[in-house]
Formats: sequence, structure tokens, C-alpha cells
Amino acid sequence: MSITDNLYSDYTSQLQKIADIKYSLAVLQWDQETYMPKKSAASRAKQMATLSELAHKESTSEALGNILQQLLEQQTLSTIQRKNVELSWQDFLKQQKYNGVFVRQMSEAVSMAFNAWMDARKQNDFTIFEPALSKLVALKKQEADILGYEEHVYNAHLNEYEKGMTVHLLDEIFKNLQQPLKELLQQALSLPTIDNGFLKLNYSKQSQLEWGMQLLKELGFDFDAGRQDISEHPFTTNFSSNDVRLTTRIDEHDFTNMTWSCIHELGHGLYEQGLLEDQYGLPCGEYTSLGIHESQSRLWENNVGRSKTFWQHYLPKLKNYFPNQLNGVDVDHFYKAINKIEPSFIRTEADELTYHSHVQIRYNIEKEIFSNNCTIKDIPSIWNEQYNQLLGVIVNNDNEGCLQDVHWSHGSFGYFPTYSLGSFYAAQFYATIQKELPNINEEIANGATKNLLNWLRNKVHKHGRMYTSNELCELITGEKLNTNYFIEYISNKIKTLQ
Amino acid sequence: MSITDNLYSDYTSQLQKIADIKYSLAVLQWDQETYMPKKSAASRAKQMATLSELAHKESTSEALGNILQQLLEQQTLSTIQRKNVELSWQDFLKQQKYNGVFVRQMSEAVSMAFNAWMDARKQNDFTIFEPALSKLVALKKQEADILGYEEHVYNAHLNEYEKGMTVHLLDEIFKNLQQPLKELLQQALSLPTIDNGFLKLNYSKQSQLEWGMQLLKELGFDFDAGRQDISEHPFTTNFSSNDVRLTTRIDEHDFTNMTWSCIHELGHGLYEQGLLEDQYGLPCGEYTSLGIHESQSRLWENNVGRSKTFWQHYLPKLKNYFPNQLNGVDVDHFYKAINKIEPSFIRTEADELTYHSHVQIRYNIEKEIFSNNCTIKDIPSIWNEQYNQLLGVIVNNDNEGCLQDVHWSHGSFGYFPTYSLGSFYAAQFYATIQKELPNINEEIANGATKNLLNWLRNKVHKHGRMYTSNELCELITGEKLNTNYFIEYISNKIKTLQ
Repeated sequence: MSITDNLYSDYTSQLQKIADIKYSLAVLQWDQETYMPKKSAASRAKQMATLSELAHKESTSEALGNILQQLLEQQTLSTIQRKNVELSWQDFLKQQKYNGVFVRQMSEAVSMAFNAWMDARKQNDFTIFEPALSKLVALKKQEADILGYEEHVYNAHLNEYEKGMTVHLLDEIFKNLQQPLKELLQQALSLPTIDNGFLKLNYSKQSQLEWGMQLLKELGFDFDAGRQDISEHPFTTNFSSNDVRLTTRIDEHDFTNMTWSCIHELGHGLYEQGLLEDQYGLPCGEYTSLGIHESQSRLWENNVGRSKTFWQHYLPKLKNYFPNQLNGVDVDHFYKAINKIEPSFIRTEADELTYHSHVQIRYNIEKEIFSNNCTIKDIPSIWNEQYNQLLGVIVNNDNEGCLQDVHWSHGSFGYFPTYSLGSFYAAQFYATIQKELPNINEEIANGATKNLLNWLRNKVHKHGRMYTSNELCELITGEKLNTNYFIEYISNKIKTLQ
Repeated sequence: MSITDNLYSDYTSQLQKIADIKYSLAVLQWDQETYMPKKSAASRAKQMATLSELAHKESTSEALGNILQQLLEQQTLSTIQRKNVELSWQDFLKQQKYNGVFVRQMSEAVSMAFNAWMDARKQNDFTIFEPALSKLVALKKQEADILGYEEHVYNAHLNEYEKGMTVHLLDEIFKNLQQPLKELLQQALSLPTIDNGFLKLNYSKQSQLEWGMQLLKELGFDFDAGRQDISEHPFTTNFSSNDVRLTTRIDEHDFTNMTWSCIHELGHGLYEQGLLEDQYGLPCGEYTSLGIHESQSRLWENNVGRSKTFWQHYLPKLKNYFPNQLNGVDVDHFYKAINKIEPSFIRTEADELTYHSHVQIRYNIEKEIFSNNCTIKDIPSIWNEQYNQLLGVIVNNDNEGCLQDVHWSHGSFGYFPTYSLGSFYAAQFYATIQKELPNINEEIANGATKNLLNWLRNKVHKHGRMYTSNELCELITGEKLNTNYFIEYISNKIKTLQ
């Protein structure tokens, strides 16, 4: 082997070892949210903290730094090798900003916050979550200083989930959308009333679970390389592209709850299963950004999963599971009911239009928290006030309000905007798909989503971090992120709901 | 804090960190045997190897060695502290014999062997398991040299599961038992024929599962500090005394399969839940030996779970689950049926008498393998021959023969004898229990097992590695392991089967 080959091989071994630790940590987290008994919380928190600390130690070792510096000087690296090394060097420099004690503290604070959130959910009481969340936010503020930022402290965290994203850019995006979204909501609210009561009948948990499993299977999720379990809040994690774990939750009295969150997580899962196996542990084997990740989940959930064509194929299948509940409901009725635009409380169940107000509220609150304009104690009142203001709904309790999402308990501040970005990317990608796969609607109407999945595999999944979100968007669609695609998509949908 | 306190605190932190890694590894193993999708096998093997290597690295660090050496010289350690330090020093010296590369190799070989065993089970074909097992055995032979031994190479592995156990001692134990066991078998085979066909009717999986869960709950397993799942081969593992995982398997056409293996694992689980929480990661928070571990599982499975008093309480409850299958079966009939002594193929389902021939066969084969008197390829033929010779049964296929146990795929050579030792300890402990808790049979007949569990908690569980098996046995019963207790116990049982 040449010197370069040797160095690259050492680099790969070291990165894969770090990945082994991080994915082990992910197994512990997955178990924590699916199967772990409650008394295990304290020891599990320590176990995860130890693994976090070890991963950090390996990620910042002098040996790794030396290998990376030498590799940066090599002239014979392939394109993908060079990209891996450059990104690993950036990651290395970032990891070096942290120290082991802080990493351990953060890991323990996250575990405690997650357990507190679970307890708070059970009691439907934010005050139970508040002390642990306050502690976590204090560390996240410290982390912003460690990472560094320009202009706004919150930018440090936004940048973690979507490289280059700033308060400035997001303020502009949300501002520009405000008027069109408002007008579209007026339009939507003047649509003929649609009876969607059949969606709230009793749908047995077991049948819903089986139905969801069938959907996942038929839409291309590889159950030899993944599985689905139940958790308090649906999520997707992975331990390699050959082991992707989806979770879902089921509400017996609300059919919409499970189905679209199941398809949403499927989109995440297909992305993870589509990452290159031979890039395990290397940047090009990791997802581009959370915005792109959410583009995959939102594309399957909405552009596909809330289309009439999709249900032309699937409604008859669904009726096999729930013949009584769906008796007399035709595709047109079903389509209009599942797309009913109506301000509501729960983000994951919101329609495609008002969804972005849910995101904006979380974004506003996070911005205020990191600007020290509000304390954690204030969250419920600000939350409820903003839901009243932006969505015109009265939040009755914390579970349908500020306790609904798991994200803050994970320390994921700056994450929520990626849901909107993901929806916008999805609309833009889907417009391109319609051009490049002219028969796609007909195919979907026949239950054939293979070509769509292949397109996503080739255009998005396989690239990993080879491109940034912006580069990838331009490569695929010929232009940067353009929210007009979303406006056009949602306007067209509203027209079909007449 | 004093110097001693400081040192002990550093020692505790370091040991707990090692425990965090080992228990994380156990989570990955548990997941591998319960929920992991099959394509994950290769990456999971690497992840586990990395954690093994890290645990080994931390277990052999110079820093730990220094702390231990200093602590050994301290005069003010409490009794439990001193015991912890002395045992940790022994562990440290043992771990130092290994190198990281070997630890990694062993971990990967075990993962490969486990996956090969799973495949072989599916195909009912030992040849699929054979190459991976050969590789693993080659490493286990190397390991014996690394660990060192006297007299017999197999002693190195026996000593791993039961300190001080040797081929010499086991040969003697099995030899002394041969005649009494043979005579008792003759007696048993001349008992009046009992119809146990009702045990092989159709027992639905779901009902069996629910029944097993009820048993676990009522017998004292804390489901806030553990759970039960399904696996190919039942096992118990733990990630702390607050997170103990049992697994079971269910055969719809054989009621005996699940119930007693469920009670067996319960015994293991209660032991782990009874270890001292404040000794997490320290020797006195770990089980004494595998022999003592099996004493707990076998005591619950047999001395309690196959007694007539136990079923006086539980048969009516069981009939709630299976009224048709158990229609007309009274306690006396049930008791005789579940204790029917009859040579058979499957160890985990064997009666209490012929069980030890199952163990002896595995012991004989392991001894031959490590003496290089037979190759892995020979296993099926030797197995089948010995089953014919010792038990008089004709093994028809590998799944009911040499593929039935998971242990070899884990590299657990020297483990099986602990099942017999455990049964013998159990009989001896149970004789003491009968004396110290004179009302225990009456209590069990009323479904009250709390006093029994408390006795085990105080006499066995809480001590961890404070005592060796022999010391513990003497402390509890006033004498060393004495197989006469078992012979007496089983003779008495046979009398009740008239």
C-alpha cells in the first residue's frame, strides 16, 4: 500500500471505531425510549455519559489529528476520500472545542431532561419538566459560547442542524411566508365543510399497528435492515445503514395520529437505509443535514402520503383493516378529510399549511430563550399565547401544548426549523420528480413507488455529506431552496379540496 | 476526605466507568438476541468488539493499577472495601494477561459464532455452525494458555465460571453420582405410567406469555427494574440491579417449554435485582459465581416450581388461562405429569433426575475438545452416541441434538457443569430453608413466596462476591457443597410420584 493508502486506512479504522461507540450510544438511547424499565434511568444516564465521553476522547485524539493533517496534504486522494478527510478535519476542530467534562455533563443533563419529560407527560404538568430543562438550557447556552457564533447566540445551534442557517435567514423566510400562508388559510377556511369524524372513531391498536407495518413494507422499508417499535414520541435512529429503527405511537381514537407519523418516519428510515454501507463511520456515509433528512420524511408523509393518487391504491387496502369505520367513505371524501386545513394543537398531526405556524412558534420561543428574553418557567404562557395569536386556538393543558414534543428534552434547540425547511425542500424536489418521472402519479395510483425510491436513492440518499444542503438542492433542482415551490404545491392542493 | 477515601473514590469511579462500558455491551448483546434485524449482524459484531476493546483498555490502565496498589496498602478500608479492592486487583492481573487485539478477535468470533448458530438452527444443520465454532474454539484454546492452568487445559475455563473448579473435582462428582442416579432412574421408570399428554395440547402463545408474565410478577420480579422479551434461547442479562432483562421462548405445542424456563430465568433475575445497588460496578455488586447463579434459577425452577405445594396455589390460576386443556386435571395428576422422569433430548425441558446426564454429556464433549481428542466436526456423532449411551435416546436431528443450546456460540465452555452444581447448591440451600422457615411449604401453598425471597436476598443475593461459592455455602448451610442433599431431595420426590 502507498503512504496515502496506509494513512487513509488508519483514518477509516479510527473513524469507524468512533462510529461504533456513537452507534452503541444510539442503541442505548433507542432502548431508553422503547423498552427500558423506569428504575434504570439513573444508571442508563451514567452509561450513556461514559460512552459520550469515550466517543469525544477518540474524536479528539492527537493521533487522529496527526493522521488528518497528513491526509490533507496528500495529492492522490479520490474525490470522496478528500471530501471525507476535509469534513472530518472540520469535525475534529469542532470536537476539540469541547472538553470531556462538559460532554459528560451534557449527556447526563439530556438523560435527566428526557426522563423528566416522560414524567411530566404522565402528569400532564410542565413544572415537572422545568428544572431539568432549565439545567439543560444553561448548558446549551454554554455550548453556544463554546461553538462560537456570529450575530445571534441561537445561530450556533441552528448551524448544528442546518449548516449556514441563521436567525437572519429564518426570520426572512418566515416573514416572506406570512402573507401567502395567511391568504391561503383564509381560502382554506372558506372551503366547503368536510366531515372527517370517521377518522376519530375507534381504530384498534393492533389493527393500526399491522396496517402501519404493511405500509412500511410495501413502501420499501427493508425489515431485514430495520424494525419498528412503539415509543412515547415517534423517532428514527440508526446503528448503520443495515440497522434502522423506526418508532411510532398509536391513538385508538385518532386514525391520523399513527398513519402519517409512520409514513414520516419511513421517509427518515429509507434515507438512512440508502446511505452507502461502505462509507460506514465516514462523513459521506452520514446524512447531509437535518433539513435534507426532513425533506425525505415530509416528502413521503405529505407529497406522497397525503395525495389522492396514493389513496386510490391504499384506501381499498385500508378498508380491509377497518371496514366499519370507513364504510361509505370514497377516495374523494377520504382525501379531503385527511387534508382538512384547520388550526390545531399538535404539530405532528397538523395539516400541511398550518404546520409551519407550529414550527414558527417553537422557533420564536427558542430565539427568546437564547436571547435571555424569557425563562424556562415562562414557556407555557408564551406557548399558549402564541398558539392563540398565530393559530387562534386555546391550549387547554401542557400535553397538548408545550410538552407535546420530545425535542427539547434531547437538547435539540434549533432543530424545529428544519421541519419547515424539509417541507420546502420536499416541495422543490417533488416538482423536479414530477418532471423527471412523468408517470409517477400513475405509478403511485397503482401502488408502485419503486421508481420514486430509486430516484431518491440516487439523487439524495447515496450522497451523504458529499454536498451541503444548498449544493445538493442546486444539483437536483437546478436552483437554491425556493419556497415558491411549496406555495405553489399547497395552493394547488387547496384548489383540489373544493 | 482522607487519602484512603480519595483513593477509594477514584477507584470506584474508574470501576464504574468500566461497568458502564460492559453493561453497554450487554445492551447491544441483549438487542442482538431479541430485536436486531439480521443484516445488522456484521456492523453489530464490530460495535461490540470496539466496546470490548475499550472495556479491556480501561480495565488494564496503568492508572487503575496504581490506584489498586496504593489501596492494597491502606489500613483503614472497611471489610467490604478491602474485599472489593482485593478482588479488583485479581481481576486486574487477569485482564493484563490479555491484549487488546485478542479481546477484539474473541468478541468478533463470538458474534460470528452466534449468528452462525442462529442460521444453523433455522436450517437444522450443524455444518452451518461448524466453521465459526471451530474458529471460536481455537481462540478459546489460546485463551486457556493465556489464563494459565494446572493439570488440565479445560480447568482454565472451568475456573472462569466457578472459581476453583477442576476436571478432577467434576469427574469425581459425576462418578459418585453415577450409581445413585442410575438406581433412582430405575426406580423412577418402574413408577406407574402417568398420562402427560395434556401438556402437549395446543397452548396459545399469547396466553402462555400472559401466564408467564403473571407468574414473574407474583413471584417478585420487579417490572420497574426489568422486563421479559422473546429470544431464540432463554437467557437473563442485566445492565444494573435496576435493569434486569429476562427472555423466554414459547412452544405452542408444549406447555412445559416456556413455564419452567420462565421460572428458571426468574431465579436468575431475582438474584440480579437483589445485588446491592450501591456496589454498582464493584466486585461486591457482582454475582458470586455461575454455580451460585444457577442455584438461584434451579431452586425456583425445581425446588419451588415443581413442588406440589406450589401448584396447589397455581393450578387453579393456570386453569383460568387454559380451561379446556386442563379440564379434569387435578393437582396430583398435574404434579406427577410435570415431574415425569423420562430420558429426553432437550436439557432445558429435562426432568430433575436425567437433567444431569444432559450436563455430563456436554462436559464430556468439552473435555474431549480441549484435550484435542475430538474435532468440532465430530460433535454431532459424539453427541448422538452419548445420548444413546447415557440416556438411551436416538437423536433425530441437530436442533434436538447438539444445536439446542446457545452457550457454545457465546464461547461459554466450562459453563454447563454450573447447571449441575447449581442444582446441588439449590438442594442444599433448600434443606436449610425448610429448617429456617418452618412454614415455608404452607406459605407456598398459599402463593406467598415473599419470605422465601427475603431469605434468598439476605443469605445469597446481597453478598455479591464478598464470599466464594464454598464460603457462602458454608456460611448458609454450615457445610461445604454436599451432593447428598440433592440425592435425598430427588429420592423423596420419586417417592411422592408413586
